[in-house]
Amino acid sequence: MALLTSEKKFIVTSPMYEEQIKGEEDEWEVIVCEDSLEEKLGELGSSLDIRRCGFQANHLSFARYKKIKEKFKPQLIPCNATVEKIRSIKDEEEINLIRKAGEITLQAFEYLKKALHTGITEKEATRELVSYILKEADGVSFDPIVLFGERTSLPHGHPTERKLKENELILVDAGAKVKGYCADITRTFAWGKIPKKWKKIYNLAYNIEKRAIKHIKPKIKASTIDKIIREKLAEAGYEKKFLHGTGHGVGLEVHEEPFLNRNSNAILEEGMVVTIEPGIYFAGEGGVRVENMVLVTNKGGKILP
Amino acid sequence: MALLTSEKKFIVTSPMYEEQIKGEEDEWEVIVCEDSLEEKLGELGSSLDIRRCGFQANHLSFARYKKIKEKFKPQLIPCNATVEKIRSIKDEEEINLIRKAGEITLQAFEYLKKALHTGITEKEATRELVSYILKEADGVSFDPIVLFGERTSLPHGHPTERKLKENELILVDAGAKVKGYCADITRTFAWGKIPKKWKKIYNLAYNIEKRAIKHIKPKIKASTIDKIIREKLAEAGYEKKFLHGTGHGVGLEVHEEPFLNRNSNAILEEGMVVTIEPGIYFAGEGGVRVENMVLVTNKGGKILP
Repeated sequence: MALLTSEKKFIVTSPMYEEQIKGEEDEWEVIVCEDSLEEKLGELGSSLDIRRCGFQANHLSFARYKKIKEKFKPQLIPCNATVEKIRSIKDEEEINLIRKAGEITLQAFEYLKKALHTGITEKEATRELVSYILKEADGVSFDPIVLFGERTSLPHGHPTERKLKENELILVDAGAKVKGYCADITRTFAWGKIPKKWKKIYNLAYNIEKRAIKHIKPKIKASTIDKIIREKLAEAGYEKKFLHGTGHGVGLEVHEEPFLNRNSNAILEEGMVVTIEPGIYFAGEGGVRVENMVLVTNKGGKILP
Repeated sequence: MALLTSEKKFIVTSPMYEEQIKGEEDEWEVIVCEDSLEEKLGELGSSLDIRRCGFQANHLSFARYKKIKEKFKPQLIPCNATVEKIRSIKDEEEINLIRKAGEITLQAFEYLKKALHTGITEKEATRELVSYILKEADGVSFDPIVLFGERTSLPHGHPTERKLKENELILVDAGAKVKGYCADITRTFAWGKIPKKWKKIYNLAYNIEKRAIKHIKPKIKASTIDKIIREKLAEAGYEKKFLHGTGHGVGLEVHEEPFLNRNSNAILEEGMVVTIEPGIYFAGEGGVRVENMVLVTNKGGKILP
């Protein structure tokens, strides 16, 4: 756990991480603690000349909060978007890492396409994808979603033994991780010939994605981007077939601030990297999603990579 | 999110998961909610005839707790070990899944051994391991730890581009996941010849592990097992070289109740599956850890698989 004051930065950690942290973080005072980290942090907070201390309420469990609070004399103030907001604006180095993670993800999609064959299972295809990503990047951002046929209607479906048949949809949602930074990209492919209905739906999602990205610029509301997508889907009669939000920030976490949905208060700013991911899903039949990472620049939205 | 009363079971979820959950869970009433799940859960709780409701304080963030509480009229009571305690005792089916996950993990270690060669990097070795696990299991329980030489002193080190040299230690900590159930096993190997010092240390860890497992039985305190290990290490002068707890339960999570350490209040019971993982670490030089999963039976501890 980390505690920052205007003068000092502390990390409270277990002996297990002592060597690692001391090798990596020389600006921090590292406090090694064999027993309860929460108690130690509480005591530390009480020993410092501070009156109030914000904490990451989205990341701290209620139980840990209670344990810290027992020993912590300054006032503890839940902050939902202080660190998160700082993190939402990426500097050049961070953008480069996300771009690199995105490049490897797209390369992995190309690698996967070559490995696909009728009869391959979703799990086998996932393994091909992960194996490529592990070779080129530091890891995966999340367990990839690789779905075939009617299973593409599950926005967060888990790969199974379902075999790829001729003439059906394939949906792949994955991301590489580079030096802690995540990518998150979705592509929907056709394997063989697919009915005109699906082509039309795919083109619609693709065009809505393009259109939404054109609207991206600093100072636009996240909810406005979401609204543009929903309006376009409504025109085609598919408003109810879009089952999730429009997107989210990506960075050290694969889902982080800002969130783009109808209830979002977020305003897009230069340097944010957000996903734009319209999807159209028909339960039991199949679905389509197009997802890119988009960098907010003062010249508009720029797809990464 | 799930809410259980003595009469009914509810799941509150986003439209994104509707098809999937309805396909899998027909005993539950599924409430699909486009906006804030916390608000919906709060309203649901207030509409039922309940006065008090426990929640998993270790798993709910402070921020989500606050959002639920705003709408939730019954008293919300933080419970740290209600669900966790039920989950800590495994039934036969769960034990079989953990055993299966353990078998695949050990097979993956054998596969890795054959793939090793002087010059392979920690990351390449990790990829071999993961590739095998993804082929045979549903996924990995956690990002594997594969470390060479002096880096084996980092109990939770991340694999790097460090190349394997002749005559050094290799530490591998990994687990397969089968139908949601995790394995967690560590082995320390020698690549070529290693100094007598390390052989002695390895044998010590191995023997302490064996001895601790002999003490496992229903009704023994988790802290007693931890104490046995620390006493044996102290006899050899290595008490300060053991940087973490003795072990933890494994199940749906790779780290779950009961935790085995000096501060634990847990009592071992028949049907628990816990890791026993003594380690001896010398910062900058290297380390050794031996970790097995052990089933608590009324005939004593039984290594899984």
